[in-house]
Amino acid sequence: MKLTLLGTANAASIPVYGCECVACQRAMVDPFYRRLNCSALLEFDDQKILIDAGLPDITARFTPGELTKVLITHYHPDHVQGLLHLRWGAGFNIQVLSPKDPVGFADLYRHPGILDFSSRLSAFEPYQMDNLEITPLPLLHSKQTLGYAFRHNGKHFAYLTDTAGLPLDTVHYLAQNRLDVMVIDCAFPPGLAGPLNHNDIDMAILLHQAIKPKKSVLSHISHELDCWLLDNEEYLPSGIVIGHDGQVLR
Amino acid sequence: MKLTLLGTANAASIPVYGCECVACQRAMVDPFYRRLNCSALLEFDDQKILIDAGLPDITARFTPGELTKVLITHYHPDHVQGLLHLRWGAGFNIQVLSPKDPVGFADLYRHPGILDFSSRLSAFEPYQMDNLEITPLPLLHSKQTLGYAFRHNGKHFAYLTDTAGLPLDTVHYLAQNRLDVMVIDCAFPPGLAGPLNHNDIDMAILLHQAIKPKKSVLSHISHELDCWLLDNEEYLPSGIVIGHDGQVLR
Repeated sequence: MKLTLLGTANAASIPVYGCECVACQRAMVDPFYRRLNCSALLEFDDQKILIDAGLPDITARFTPGELTKVLITHYHPDHVQGLLHLRWGAGFNIQVLSPKDPVGFADLYRHPGILDFSSRLSAFEPYQMDNLEITPLPLLHSKQTLGYAFRHNGKHFAYLTDTAGLPLDTVHYLAQNRLDVMVIDCAFPPGLAGPLNHNDIDMAILLHQAIKPKKSVLSHISHELDCWLLDNEEYLPSGIVIGHDGQVLR
Repeated sequence: MKLTLLGTANAASIPVYGCECVACQRAMVDPFYRRLNCSALLEFDDQKILIDAGLPDITARFTPGELTKVLITHYHPDHVQGLLHLRWGAGFNIQVLSPKDPVGFADLYRHPGILDFSSRLSAFEPYQMDNLEITPLPLLHSKQTLGYAFRHNGKHFAYLTDTAGLPLDTVHYLAQNRLDVMVIDCAFPPGLAGPLNHNDIDMAILLHQAIKPKKSVLSHISHELDCWLLDNEEYLPSGIVIGHDGQVLR
């Protein structure tokens, strides 16, 4: 099982268009610090699952038929806007697994094209794909949102965006099932978390300490957080790292 | 006044992802035949107006502050999806001129970011930008849609997507005000026009003959039309050409 972080930014991405902050200017100069919209690619055996679809260039990144499925955490634009184009493909279908959100996004349900939205997932009801078990986990966000735990050949990953804190049921499930890797929402420096939207770095640390994965990787990062980290490099306890685009977790 | 066609395709763009038709295969091999989502750039004096915003890479194409305004024909995804990212810029604002559509697209009105949607245009009520006069014209489409006539230094252009036929008021206005260039929706080969959506090539020819611009340029083209044109190269009367991405009209 291999998880590649395709994007690690919040909706604005980094550099923010027109922004002159230190983090955005650094990202203009050095591509390593650029962050695209939060998404990831999970690979196991010969299968590829795209986790969230906010990248606008999905059809350029993957050949037709290369993606086994798309797995959606929630229907906010920065997590699904790439489906607006992907749906108009031809000659094959792509199954989209997602929460039971009656609204979805824009006109995707009405004009699904090649996308099949019929598989809706429910919290704590595992979905089996060959040797991969996907367990949907409730998150706390301003739209109905699921995180996902992935179990394959004895390894256990979790992918938890977008969320501000976590429901106790989710914390208990993850604490009881020792995680190798936890990717978790961390949009803001301490004290800047919005209500019902995203973790700040202190909440991410607290959740790491409660769940005790072997490793936590922070994602959905804002330019405010990247700026703050430049002056607070030593803030993160061991076992927690800042994610970056292209990072591979095994 | 200079109009550059940035995209000349319908929502699917060309090549259609996964499609094996002759037109899509040709576009895979030769970038000249690729078509992005229908949009254009109008330049006059030192100003740049982006007409429709379906391209996902607006922030990569234009430096911050380079676009004077964005002009929207209608709020279908392939004409506005690029605003979902553009709005999260920082340090300046962009005025978006658009029809009085109470819904707009997705959450753009609720979370406009740097975009200012307060200027809503009405049919036949000219909007003045320095020496440029923009006259909104009603079109016939499945969502509230305006075409635009541009008058600058004695030159007169019209940009008319998306539409299936044209209201007679619009035809009369355009016929009475001799056009130098008319860019017009032409999505389909003869007989394939969808009700209230797009012109087929026969309707586009009919409108050209009724309005009598010096030159008509067809846009919003589907791969079905590009395939059909391969076998029907001589079909278009003189004065009408097929648009292509990057084409410059002066």
